[in-house]
Amino acid sequence: MAYLIAVYDVNQKRVGKMLKLFRRYLTWVQNSVFEGELTEAQFQALRQEADALLQDQDGVVFYRLRDERYRDRIALGEEKGERSRFL
Amino acid sequence: MAYLIAVYDVNQKRVGKMLKLFRRYLTWVQNSVFEGELTEAQFQALRQEADALLQDQDGVVFYRLRDERYRDRIALGEEKGERSRFL
Repeated sequence: MAYLIAVYDVNQKRVGKMLKLFRRYLTWVQNSVFEGELTEAQFQALRQEADALLQDQDGVVFYRLRDERYRDRIALGEEKGERSRFL
Repeated sequence: MAYLIAVYDVNQKRVGKMLKLFRRYLTWVQNSVFEGELTEAQFQALRQEADALLQDQDGVVFYRLRDERYRDRIALGEEKGERSRFL
């Protein structure tokens, strides 16, 4: 099992679908932020389903805390953070 | 030092101020999501400045990963997650 914090930044047209998808796997925290525990298989399934929905400038970042002790950072789609372009 | 993932959900009137505050301490990831490494003193300072800005239904959640191995969850203001009210 791993503990996931997931955040997405998608076009308004896709917010509904992403919310629905993420709520199937994780707990909604606020805005487009979710958290919860997932098996590796569940994580891979969510990751693939999210990837299939992404278009254009959409982006998803998963912070995966393997058994709550390690932190991984996995970015799908476009990263909108300050590292990629100046606001 | 600790690694922080911070997410906020605030009234539109306060988004500008929160963005400015969080960017002084952390790296913007997307939407209202930030991450970065902070000393305990920096974290407490950010936490207090954020708390002073919060009003009404605003909320901030910090995920603090002490030296990237442990995960803490600290919520300020109102928690908007599914645990507190049905969407």
